[in-house]
Amino acid sequence: MTSKPIRAIVVGGTGYTGAELVRLILGHPSLELVSIVGNKTAGQSLASVLPSLRGIVDGTVQPFEPDAIAERADVAFCALPHAASAEAVSALRQRGQTVFDLSADFRLDDLAVYEAWYGKHPVPELLSEAVYGLVELHREELEGADLIAVPGCYPTASTLALAPLVNNGLIRPEGIVVDAKSGVSGAGRGLSAATHFPETAEGVRAYKAGAHRHGPEIEQELSRLAGAPIQIAFVPHLIPMTRGILATCYAQPSGSKVTAAACLEAARALYAGSPSVQVLEEGAHPDTLWVRGSNRVHVGYAQDRSSGTLIAMSAIDNLVKGASGQAIQCLNVRFGLPEGAGLEAPAQWP
Amino acid sequence: MTSKPIRAIVVGGTGYTGAELVRLILGHPSLELVSIVGNKTAGQSLASVLPSLRGIVDGTVQPFEPDAIAERADVAFCALPHAASAEAVSALRQRGQTVFDLSADFRLDDLAVYEAWYGKHPVPELLSEAVYGLVELHREELEGADLIAVPGCYPTASTLALAPLVNNGLIRPEGIVVDAKSGVSGAGRGLSAATHFPETAEGVRAYKAGAHRHGPEIEQELSRLAGAPIQIAFVPHLIPMTRGILATCYAQPSGSKVTAAACLEAARALYAGSPSVQVLEEGAHPDTLWVRGSNRVHVGYAQDRSSGTLIAMSAIDNLVKGASGQAIQCLNVRFGLPEGAGLEAPAQWP
Amino acid sequence: MTSKPIRAIVVGGTGYTGAELVRLILGHPSLELVSIVGNKTAGQSLASVLPSLRGIVDGTVQPFEPDAIAERADVAFCALPHAASAEAVSALRQRGQTVFDLSADFRLDDLAVYEAWYGKHPVPELLSEAVYGLVELHREELEGADLIAVPGCYPTASTLALAPLVNNGLIRPEGIVVDAKSGVSGAGRGLSAATHFPETAEGVRAYKAGAHRHGPEIEQELSRLAGAPIQIAFVPHLIPMTRGILATCYAQPSGSKVTAAACLEAARALYAGSPSVQVLEEGAHPDTLWVRGSNRVHVGYAQDRSSGTLIAMSAIDNLVKGASGQAIQCLNVRFGLPEGAGLEAPAQWP
Amino acid sequence: MTSKPIRAIVVGGTGYTGAELVRLILGHPSLELVSIVGNKTAGQSLASVLPSLRGIVDGTVQPFEPDAIAERADVAFCALPHAASAEAVSALRQRGQTVFDLSADFRLDDLAVYEAWYGKHPVPELLSEAVYGLVELHREELEGADLIAVPGCYPTASTLALAPLVNNGLIRPEGIVVDAKSGVSGAGRGLSAATHFPETAEGVRAYKAGAHRHGPEIEQELSRLAGAPIQIAFVPHLIPMTRGILATCYAQPSGSKVTAAACLEAARALYAGSPSVQVLEEGAHPDTLWVRGSNRVHVGYAQDRSSGTLIAMSAIDNLVKGASGQAIQCLNVRFGLPEGAGLEAPAQWP
Repeated sequence: MTSKPIRAIVVGGTGYTGAELVRLILGHPSLELVSIVGNKTAGQSLASVLPSLRGIVDGTVQPFEPDAIAERADVAFCALPHAASAEAVSALRQRGQTVFDLSADFRLDDLAVYEAWYGKHPVPELLSEAVYGLVELHREELEGADLIAVPGCYPTASTLALAPLVNNGLIRPEGIVVDAKSGVSGAGRGLSAATHFPETAEGVRAYKAGAHRHGPEIEQELSRLAGAPIQIAFVPHLIPMTRGILATCYAQPSGSKVTAAACLEAARALYAGSPSVQVLEEGAHPDTLWVRGSNRVHVGYAQDRSSGTLIAMSAIDNLVKGASGQAIQCLNVRFGLPEGAGLEAPAQWP
Repeated sequence: MTSKPIRAIVVGGTGYTGAELVRLILGHPSLELVSIVGNKTAGQSLASVLPSLRGIVDGTVQPFEPDAIAERADVAFCALPHAASAEAVSALRQRGQTVFDLSADFRLDDLAVYEAWYGKHPVPELLSEAVYGLVELHREELEGADLIAVPGCYPTASTLALAPLVNNGLIRPEGIVVDAKSGVSGAGRGLSAATHFPETAEGVRAYKAGAHRHGPEIEQELSRLAGAPIQIAFVPHLIPMTRGILATCYAQPSGSKVTAAACLEAARALYAGSPSVQVLEEGAHPDTLWVRGSNRVHVGYAQDRSSGTLIAMSAIDNLVKGASGQAIQCLNVRFGLPEGAGLEAPAQWP
Repeated sequence: MTSKPIRAIVVGGTGYTGAELVRLILGHPSLELVSIVGNKTAGQSLASVLPSLRGIVDGTVQPFEPDAIAERADVAFCALPHAASAEAVSALRQRGQTVFDLSADFRLDDLAVYEAWYGKHPVPELLSEAVYGLVELHREELEGADLIAVPGCYPTASTLALAPLVNNGLIRPEGIVVDAKSGVSGAGRGLSAATHFPETAEGVRAYKAGAHRHGPEIEQELSRLAGAPIQIAFVPHLIPMTRGILATCYAQPSGSKVTAAACLEAARALYAGSPSVQVLEEGAHPDTLWVRGSNRVHVGYAQDRSSGTLIAMSAIDNLVKGASGQAIQCLNVRFGLPEGAGLEAPAQWP
Repeated sequence: MTSKPIRAIVVGGTGYTGAELVRLILGHPSLELVSIVGNKTAGQSLASVLPSLRGIVDGTVQPFEPDAIAERADVAFCALPHAASAEAVSALRQRGQTVFDLSADFRLDDLAVYEAWYGKHPVPELLSEAVYGLVELHREELEGADLIAVPGCYPTASTLALAPLVNNGLIRPEGIVVDAKSGVSGAGRGLSAATHFPETAEGVRAYKAGAHRHGPEIEQELSRLAGAPIQIAFVPHLIPMTRGILATCYAQPSGSKVTAAACLEAARALYAGSPSVQVLEEGAHPDTLWVRGSNRVHVGYAQDRSSGTLIAMSAIDNLVKGASGQAIQCLNVRFGLPEGAGLEAPAQWP
C-alpha cells in the first residue's frame, strides 16, 4: 500500500465482536489498528485479556477518552451494548469522527419502534444521520455516510435470504416465517445459565419466541423493499455451537408459477456484484460450517413438495458477516476501497 | 412382579434405537429381554458390539431366525431399515407374534403415498392390520393391536405440538410450517460425511428441505385430526448434538381471539391423562436438554407479537419418545400395563 | 418390595449431583424420596428449578431444617460445597442420622492435609467417624458406617485404575503420573468464563496443574494400599463435553517381567466381586461414552512399546460413579442391600 | 509485493490440511496458488468439493501430473497419506521441484524405524535429502533445503514443550511422559466409527496407547537435543472438538533446584527469536482455544506441588502449526522471507 492507512480504533474491543474486529483490522491492507478501548478492562495488558493477541498486539486496553480517540484515529468501531453505544457514538460524532456502530442504537428508523423494544434512546437526534449498513442493499447510501449502523446478525442472514423474493414480488407479504438458529457466541461474553456449557451443549431451544428485538429490524428492511408494511413471525434458537447463523425462511409464492428456480434467478441477479454473497445451486443447503470465519453468505432456495411453500435459507458467521466483517465491508464502501478488501479469506474449514 | 414377565426380543438391536430398547427393557418391571438379533454382527459378543452392556448382558448377537424367535419370545421389537423391516415383520406375524415395528413400513395408511416416498412395499397386505402408535392420539386402537407402527421421530414431536391446535380448530389449515431440529443420532450408526465429527460439530444445516419422508406422515395425522387434507411445509435440520428433537411449528390463528393461552388450554385438555406429555406454562420454551434420555415431551406455545402467528414448540429425545421409549409405551397400552411403566425416569440432566 | 423403604432426603438437590441423586433414588427399589432441600431455591417449585422433574416430582424445594429432616428421613445425602457441607453433616449427625456426604469435608484422614488444601475444618472431631466410600476398596468398613465420605470424581477414576498395580507391587512408587480429563459438569452449576460455552466448546486446557485438591486424596488411598507414602503428579483437564472422566495413569513397572497382561490379571482379581468395575481386554481403551449415565467403571491397561511405561486407564461418569451413583452404592453396602441395587442400568448410549 | 510471487501447488488439496494450505496460500503476500490437485476428486469443481472456496477460487480439481506441475509451479505442498506421498514427492523431486511434504514419509532419519512403524518405504534413497521442518529447532538447515518433511502434529506440540528442558539438561531422560489430546480433525476426512458424531461428541478416549507412530518422531528430536537416546511414553487421546492439540508432558527434574521458573526461563531463551512461540507466564495454562486457526504455539510450565514432577504444556492448532501453517513457515525460511509472512493472523477466537 502506498497510500496512508486509515487509522482505526475499536471501542469495546474485548468482547467477541471486538476481538473479531481486531483480527480483521490487523489483516486489512488499508487499515492500521490504533488502539483497543474497553472500560471494564482498561489498564490491563491485551495479552491477559485476549491471549490470542500475545506476541501480536502489545500494550494495554485503553479507557474511553473521546478527545484522544478523535485525535489519534480516523474511524471508530463501537462494539458496545445498546444505549451505552449511543452515548459513545454521540461523543465521537461531536468530534467529527466517522463511526461504525455495531449496536442496535441506530438501526431502526422509527424512534417509536426503537423505544418499544429497547427503551429510551439517548440521542434520538442522531437517528436521521445514520445509514443502515446492510451493504448489499444500501451500497450507495454508504458512500457518504459518517454514522453507519451495522445490522444485527439475524437481520443480516434473514434479510439477505428474503430480499430477492420480496424485491421481485415472488412471495405473498403475509405469513412469512423466519426460523433462525444461532451459535452461542451471539449471546456475547456475558455469563448466564443459558450459555453455561453443561446446560447448552446437548440441548436446543427457542428463546424470545415471537418477541425478539431483531424482528422489527427484519420487518423494516423487508417493508422498505416491498414498499408496504410486512409483518413476519420471527423465532431465534440457540444451537450448541460457537459461531454461525442459519436462517430458514418460509413464504407462500405469489403465484403458481413461482418456483425455487425463480428464487435462485432473482437472487443471482440481485447479488451479481456482491462479493460476499454466494447463491448455491438448486438443491444445495447452506451450511454455517462452510462460511465459518469468513464474511461470506451462502443462500439457497427450495420449495416444499407438498404445500408449495418457498424455503429461503442463508448461512453466515454471526461474528463476521453478522457483525465485524460487515462493519469492515461498510468501511470499504464508505472509503471507496474494494468492497471485499481484507475480507477475501475463505472460511476456516473445518 | 408376581405375574409372568413378557418375553421380548429386539431385532436390529445394535443400532442406536436397538441399544435404547435394550436399556429400557432391562429396566422395565414386566419385561424380560430374551435376546438381541442383528444380522451383520451375529455371533459376536454383545460386550464387543455394545461395550455399554459389558457385565450386564452376556452372550452373543443372534441371527434372525423367525421360528426360534416366535418360540422364545412373546413380542418382538423391529429396529431395522425400511423394507428390510417389513420382511422381518411379515415373517414374525405369520408366526403369530406381536410386533412393534420402529421402521416407516407400516406408518402410512396409503400405499401410494408409501411407495412415492419409500419405493415398493414388500408386504402391502399387512398395512391394514397396522395401528399407528402415537399413543396420545391412538390409545384405544392400540389395545388390541398385534402390529404396531411406532411413529417417526419428527412426526412424534411435530404432531404432538400441533394436535391440540388442529383438533380444536384454533389454526387455519393452510400455511402450516414445521421447522425441526434434530440431534445427529437420528441419522443412525451408519457413517457419512454429514455425520463425520469435524464436518458436523460446528455447523448447522437443513437437509431434504421440503422433501423429507416424515412430511407425509405428519400430514396424515394432522389431516386425520382435521377431518380434511392438510398440507404442510416441513424442513428438518441437523444440529451438532447427539440426542433430541425440537419442533418449532408455525400456523395462522383461525380467528382474532386465538392466543397462546388458548393453545395452552387446548393442549392441557388433550394431554390431561397422558403421563408422557408436559405442557409448559406460557412463556416457557421447551428444551431438549430437559427431556434427554426420558420418554417425556415438553410442549409450549407462544404468539408472535408482530404478525400474530402462533408458535407451537415441542422437545423430545428422538431415541426415546421418538423411537424406543414410544415403542415401550405402545407395549404398555397393548398389554394393559400402566402407560408409563418402565418409562418413569426423568431426563438424565445435564 | 415387601420391606419398608428407606426414606431419603437430598440436601443440595438442585445442582448436578443433587439432580442425579434424585434420578437414582426415584429408580431405586428400596428407597423413597422424601424431599429435596436447597437453601438458595427454597420455596420454588421443583418443576421450575429442575424442569426434568415436571410431572414426576411435585412440590417445592425445602429449606434446610435438621429437625424436620431427622424426623422425616432415614438417610440424608449432602451435595453441598465443602465447609457448608460439614456444617450440615454435623447438624444431621447430632440428630443421629446416617449421612452420605458428597463434599470433600470427610475424605481426608489427616486434618493438616485437609486444612492445607481447603482451609479450616468446621467440625474436625467428626473426621475419625467418617468412612471413605470408595466401595471397591472399603466394602467392609462401610457396613457399620453412619458418616460416609463419598470420594471425589478424579480420585475414584484414578484410584481404581492404579489400585491393582499398587496393591500387587507391580509398579514403582516414584514417578506416578495421573493425567485426568473431565467433562464440564464436574465444575458444577456455577457460572464462570471457563465454563461459558463459546470459551469451552472448542478448547482443551489443564487447570490447577500439579496443584489440584484431589491430588492428596488420590495419594492417601494409594499410600494406604502401598503401606508407604506415595507422591504422584496430578493434572486435571477440562474437556468440551458434559459428563465423564478419563484418567490416564502412567507408572514404571517394578520389574522387567511386569506387563500389561499382569496388570489386567491383577485388576480382574481385585475387582472379581465388584459389579461396577469392568476390566477390558488387552488392547481396549476405556471410553467415557460407554459408561455415560451409568455407575460403571471401565478400566484397561497397556504398556508403552518404547519406554515400557505402564499405562492404566479408567473411564467413569463423573456424576454417577464419580458422585451420586457411588453414594447410592455406599448406601446399598451400608444397609445390606445388593451392591448394585438401583444401579444396574447400562450407559445411555450414545 | 514488487517481486515475482512464488507459484505454489497443493497436492492432496481437498482434505483438511490441503484446504488449510489453500487458505494460507491465498492470504500469503508472496505466494500464488496455481492449482489444487486431488486424484479422487479430479475434474470436479472446487466449489462442489470445498464449498468454502465458492466465489474465491474457480476451476476444477486437477489430476496429479508431475510434468505439468513442475512447469507451472515453483513449489509443491504434498498433503497425501504416507507412501502415496513418497511416490509423489519422488516424481516431483526428479523434476527439480522444491517440495514440502506433510506426510510422515521423510520425517524419520532411520529407515529401520520408519519401516517398523509404517511399512516398506517407497524411496528410501530420498531420506538423506530431507530436512525435518520443525522450524524453531532446524532453522538453519531449512535455508537450502529442497525436500522438507513437515513434522507431525503431536511431535510439533510435544517437542516444542520439552525442547527447552532437554536442551538445558533440566530433566532426567528416563520416565518422560507425553499425554496428548487432539481434536478430531487430526484423523482426517476419512469416515470411521471413532469419528462419527454421536460416538465422538460426548466421549473421550485414548487410542493406540503406547503404540502411536508419532512416538518415535518425538523421540528422534528429543534424542538429538539430548545427544543420547531418549525413550518416552506417548499416549494420544481423541477429544470432542474439531481443532487443536494440547500436549501435557511430565518429567522428573534433574536436580532439586530445577523449578517451573527455570523451565520458563529456558523456554524464553530458546524461543526468543521465534515469532510462532509464546511462552506464557508462570501459572498460566495453554489452551487450544486461544491458538485456534493461527500458527501460534502457547507453552507453559508448572511443577507438581507434591511430587515435584515438572509439567510442560503446549497448545497448537493441529491443522495450522501442526501441519499447513508450519509448512508455510518452512517455506518462508527456505526462501528467505520473514518467518511469519502470511502467518501473522491471531487465532479466530472464539
